[in-house]
Amino acid sequence: MISIGVIGYGYWGPNIVRNFAETEDCQVIAVSDLSSDRLAKVQTRYPAFETTSDYSDLLRDERIEAIAIATPVSTHFDLALQALRAGKHVLVEKPLASTSEQVIRLMDEADRRNLVMMVDHTFVYTGAVRRIRELITNDGLGDIYYYDSVRVNLGLFQHDVNVIWDLAVHDLSIMDHLLPVQPCAVSATGVSHLPGEPANIAYLTLFFESNLIAHIHVNWLAPVKVRRTLIGGSQKMILYDDLEPSEKVKVYDKGITVNSTESVYQMLIGYRAGDMWAPQLDITEALRTEAIHFINCIEEGNRPITDGESGLRVVQVLEAATQSMLQRGRPVELAAIGVAA
Amino acid sequence: MISIGVIGYGYWGPNIVRNFAETEDCQVIAVSDLSSDRLAKVQTRYPAFETTSDYSDLLRDERIEAIAIATPVSTHFDLALQALRAGKHVLVEKPLASTSEQVIRLMDEADRRNLVMMVDHTFVYTGAVRRIRELITNDGLGDIYYYDSVRVNLGLFQHDVNVIWDLAVHDLSIMDHLLPVQPCAVSATGVSHLPGEPANIAYLTLFFESNLIAHIHVNWLAPVKVRRTLIGGSQKMILYDDLEPSEKVKVYDKGITVNSTESVYQMLIGYRAGDMWAPQLDITEALRTEAIHFINCIEEGNRPITDGESGLRVVQVLEAATQSMLQRGRPVELAAIGVAA
Amino acid sequence: MISIGVIGYGYWGPNIVRNFAETEDCQVIAVSDLSSDRLAKVQTRYPAFETTSDYSDLLRDERIEAIAIATPVSTHFDLALQALRAGKHVLVEKPLASTSEQVIRLMDEADRRNLVMMVDHTFVYTGAVRRIRELITNDGLGDIYYYDSVRVNLGLFQHDVNVIWDLAVHDLSIMDHLLPVQPCAVSATGVSHLPGEPANIAYLTLFFESNLIAHIHVNWLAPVKVRRTLIGGSQKMILYDDLEPSEKVKVYDKGITVNSTESVYQMLIGYRAGDMWAPQLDITEALRTEAIHFINCIEEGNRPITDGESGLRVVQVLEAATQSMLQRGRPVELAAIGVAA
Amino acid sequence: MISIGVIGYGYWGPNIVRNFAETEDCQVIAVSDLSSDRLAKVQTRYPAFETTSDYSDLLRDERIEAIAIATPVSTHFDLALQALRAGKHVLVEKPLASTSEQVIRLMDEADRRNLVMMVDHTFVYTGAVRRIRELITNDGLGDIYYYDSVRVNLGLFQHDVNVIWDLAVHDLSIMDHLLPVQPCAVSATGVSHLPGEPANIAYLTLFFESNLIAHIHVNWLAPVKVRRTLIGGSQKMILYDDLEPSEKVKVYDKGITVNSTESVYQMLIGYRAGDMWAPQLDITEALRTEAIHFINCIEEGNRPITDGESGLRVVQVLEAATQSMLQRGRPVELAAIGVAA
Repeated sequence: MISIGVIGYGYWGPNIVRNFAETEDCQVIAVSDLSSDRLAKVQTRYPAFETTSDYSDLLRDERIEAIAIATPVSTHFDLALQALRAGKHVLVEKPLASTSEQVIRLMDEADRRNLVMMVDHTFVYTGAVRRIRELITNDGLGDIYYYDSVRVNLGLFQHDVNVIWDLAVHDLSIMDHLLPVQPCAVSATGVSHLPGEPANIAYLTLFFESNLIAHIHVNWLAPVKVRRTLIGGSQKMILYDDLEPSEKVKVYDKGITVNSTESVYQMLIGYRAGDMWAPQLDITEALRTEAIHFINCIEEGNRPITDGESGLRVVQVLEAATQSMLQRGRPVELAAIGVAA
Repeated sequence: MISIGVIGYGYWGPNIVRNFAETEDCQVIAVSDLSSDRLAKVQTRYPAFETTSDYSDLLRDERIEAIAIATPVSTHFDLALQALRAGKHVLVEKPLASTSEQVIRLMDEADRRNLVMMVDHTFVYTGAVRRIRELITNDGLGDIYYYDSVRVNLGLFQHDVNVIWDLAVHDLSIMDHLLPVQPCAVSATGVSHLPGEPANIAYLTLFFESNLIAHIHVNWLAPVKVRRTLIGGSQKMILYDDLEPSEKVKVYDKGITVNSTESVYQMLIGYRAGDMWAPQLDITEALRTEAIHFINCIEEGNRPITDGESGLRVVQVLEAATQSMLQRGRPVELAAIGVAA
Repeated sequence: MISIGVIGYGYWGPNIVRNFAETEDCQVIAVSDLSSDRLAKVQTRYPAFETTSDYSDLLRDERIEAIAIATPVSTHFDLALQALRAGKHVLVEKPLASTSEQVIRLMDEADRRNLVMMVDHTFVYTGAVRRIRELITNDGLGDIYYYDSVRVNLGLFQHDVNVIWDLAVHDLSIMDHLLPVQPCAVSATGVSHLPGEPANIAYLTLFFESNLIAHIHVNWLAPVKVRRTLIGGSQKMILYDDLEPSEKVKVYDKGITVNSTESVYQMLIGYRAGDMWAPQLDITEALRTEAIHFINCIEEGNRPITDGESGLRVVQVLEAATQSMLQRGRPVELAAIGVAA
Repeated sequence: MISIGVIGYGYWGPNIVRNFAETEDCQVIAVSDLSSDRLAKVQTRYPAFETTSDYSDLLRDERIEAIAIATPVSTHFDLALQALRAGKHVLVEKPLASTSEQVIRLMDEADRRNLVMMVDHTFVYTGAVRRIRELITNDGLGDIYYYDSVRVNLGLFQHDVNVIWDLAVHDLSIMDHLLPVQPCAVSATGVSHLPGEPANIAYLTLFFESNLIAHIHVNWLAPVKVRRTLIGGSQKMILYDDLEPSEKVKVYDKGITVNSTESVYQMLIGYRAGDMWAPQLDITEALRTEAIHFINCIEEGNRPITDGESGLRVVQVLEAATQSMLQRGRPVELAAIGVAA
């Protein structure tokens, strides 16, 4: 039975609290938030949970073994560092911190103290992404040609991070989980339509050593909500539409066949179209799967799937993309993504 | 009654021939193509039309006043130049030529001879694009924030041009018609998945002097066909889906409202969602409208909507985008797009 | 402040409890259910609420002024009657009772005791149905020609009622609210695919004095979920798709125009297609709107929108439809639907 | 090489002519129509074909071996009978004739003269329906529980037949091809919204000896076009949406499982949801496949798939449905559908 404290009860915190509250082998001890209104909501809904406006109460609480952090990005580093120093395992909302340097310091701290540090890359725990990973791992797609994702809707402009850090982080964490290789460069473009505010629309292209290419389109100012990813392989291709009520993942037996002949102008390209297939998916709420995984990692001393390193790789791309965006797409190298950087 | 000759009866030529054949005030005299199989199809379907494997027969034919060219891009310049020199008005399939220099030479030739030169930017003549232009011209959207288009499907890999020249040309010609301003720089990325072949997937970002941004995604290797454009304005936003059987254009009364306060962190962003409206569209085939316009321009001595200048602006962006793509997105300036370049 | 007791915490009860718990001017005092597991869930989620396995505890509780009943249909009559006799206002899940005779007895009891009796025709309180009613009331559609609804999906076979009583009841209650006239006859067909179980697929046609016709298709055994209603009028037509995340209601400016000439064979029918328009809808949860309405009716002494009479009209059609279904569609008259029956 | 004459060049005739014109092993000799405008269109498009306003010219023409009839339903019988008596094979647009008695007389005539008589049940020759038949024949669905089809749109009101004879005939011919059993009774409802005109909206339920049930909804006055069929089986279920550009046929591994226990109230129904699968379909135009089949039947002396008997079974249901519709759904027996009737 792992005892949990949760810092932050704003947009995402209630989902964190609800899932830990309903997960076996753990119990929520206390929730902190700066807003008394929000704490009142906790009290109404979970009278047994303690509430406080001072997060350090949670850090000092010896009963609490693990801290979940669901606060603005700019506070992740400080809170996670203090929690680790207080000897708590931590689960941190995405992105793990504001800079890759911060992430590395957190990783060091967690490693030295032998504590679990997990980043809440929620989509990695969805049935859809887990099923796609199985397909890719079992070589169901052939060579991966491209990964193309659109994540747009109207709403939730952030003041402290741009749309890349808010939305593209999801796609980067999914890609980090699905693809067997790391990007080597990024070109990003985007603008802000509100003076003085961070960019609200952005486009990222990720380059790899091979001819694999990835692209992410994120937008806070779209009239319709879109959550669509195309993954093209030499054998099969996937359409993953997260808004489909069922059949979120469709696998197309489509592609081209090439008959090389002497002259390039005689290269014959054939088009192959076969069946489409939508595998049944596990519909467990991702955050539930994730909460159970976090608890298990603590109990078993395992490294989480979405550990500090995956958090680091994602933040490194976010940094490079933001840098590229300021220069209208000039490519930025990701010479040695990962811990060795 | 304008007499027409058509060069090229491959993929697009049959549509050109059919539309001129069914348009009043003009008659098709002859069709040329290198393939005798294709000419046989013309003869079966239109026994009254002459056919020839030598396009110069058409140029020499004194009855023919105008030539429509529907051949591979690399031949556009030579054929159009010869046609103009033979004193014929010309309609050239998109893109107008392989380089902006070629376009300028064609424009000079047409101007000097007082001949109509029109580029077949087909989508400009659709009911959908014409209706969107009305909306934008009447300031129905407010300030234009972004233009985002996806044009992907499986098929028709080209050997002589990359996917930008084949597919993005549609979006660039639509944008050229819809937007009141010209782009000042472009960043493009893309790769080829077939050794030695042109890029089959590409992403273009277009920058403007204002905070308007445009993006185009084109792909010959997608499992599903997508033809979707989002146009975001400060007052309204448009979703234009060319594959919708009806309601291709949807106008959303959605957006944000900003209440500035002292501190940026207190800037209040409100989200506004109102009705959606799908205007009825003229469903005349675009090529029919275009054929009539071409005939009218010849008869009245008018300049076509899609004249050499629009063809030039589009080719200039195609050149810059291809250049940027070779450098992984490094932005390329379009210092003075248009004739003055 | 109205005090509420809730009987039944199975499929729908939790929604009832949650909505009353979050509605101002009322408080939930106690919840009863036969299952101790379900009561344990209430205790975990709402520790302040009392729980009991004996619903009569609620009837005896003098603090409780109103009872909400969310139990199997066959128990509605007994529970509602006892609640009314105990002097409680009642809100009863749909359908109000198992027979029209039972409904009339409940109506008499409520009237004699001057108590509010409301039937939970939930859809009547959705933003979509309220908006459609406005359109119809303001004569936006012209003469109503037809009402056609499909409500199918896989799941939740009932043992005590057939699919008409379970699903078509929704459409009948919506129609009762939307249409200004009452049906005069019904023809229904349907079968059971499980021996000894009630019909799981059914089709109802409702006839009216005019040439208005209504049809409802319900099915517990469909591979896809469909919730689509077409309402055809002489001036405009509506498509109401409850599964659309937004734009649930689309209004089409479509129809026919008739130019009568001498001979019927020369009657010229013209087809009119204009704009489509999707009005913005109130997205408040229907059950919230309904809970507030119930509380207001108690406080103000008003008759609810979905009162006993609407409950009666719906049950009368359900009875007739079931009777017709047993005779393979033989039409059954609804000579004088409503209280006067 | 079979020589063909075509009577009728209105809505469907041009498709008939085009497909025979492009089919090998046959040639179109002549086309007749009452309208000189239509004949002018034939001459423009197919200068080699003879045209006449008098269909008897075709019957007298000794070169012509087969006649295709694409005229109003009320004329089918007379024209087909005359064609057969003139010794021609006949292909007749659906429905084969106006009464089952007429169909039987045509069948007799064709049999006596040893001529091929085929009814143009076009959908039977689509890749979608042929694939579904394979699935059903190979027992891919288990027991067939229901067949449910919706075929609605705005347009093409007919003056001489009601919407059942115009649209439901498609579904009846598809069902006749797909299902191994014949219906034993029909209940139909519907109305006309134009005084003096045939019913423009109708609903048919077909009963079978087993618990299979079929339902067809047809409507000439719908704001949207729908062509959707659900086929439910005990093992798998099919969604056939003819308007889907690809994936017209989806096979769902969904259903219920029943664990009988002592009491009916304890019968446990489990819900099973597995993968979805969309088989690739032959995309040959149905009428092309059909034209080839007609020619083959003439050459080989075979009986067509859509022979007089299938035409008869369909017309018998159309008659019974129309009769039921006049009596508001009163079921009409189809005691012994087929030739033996």
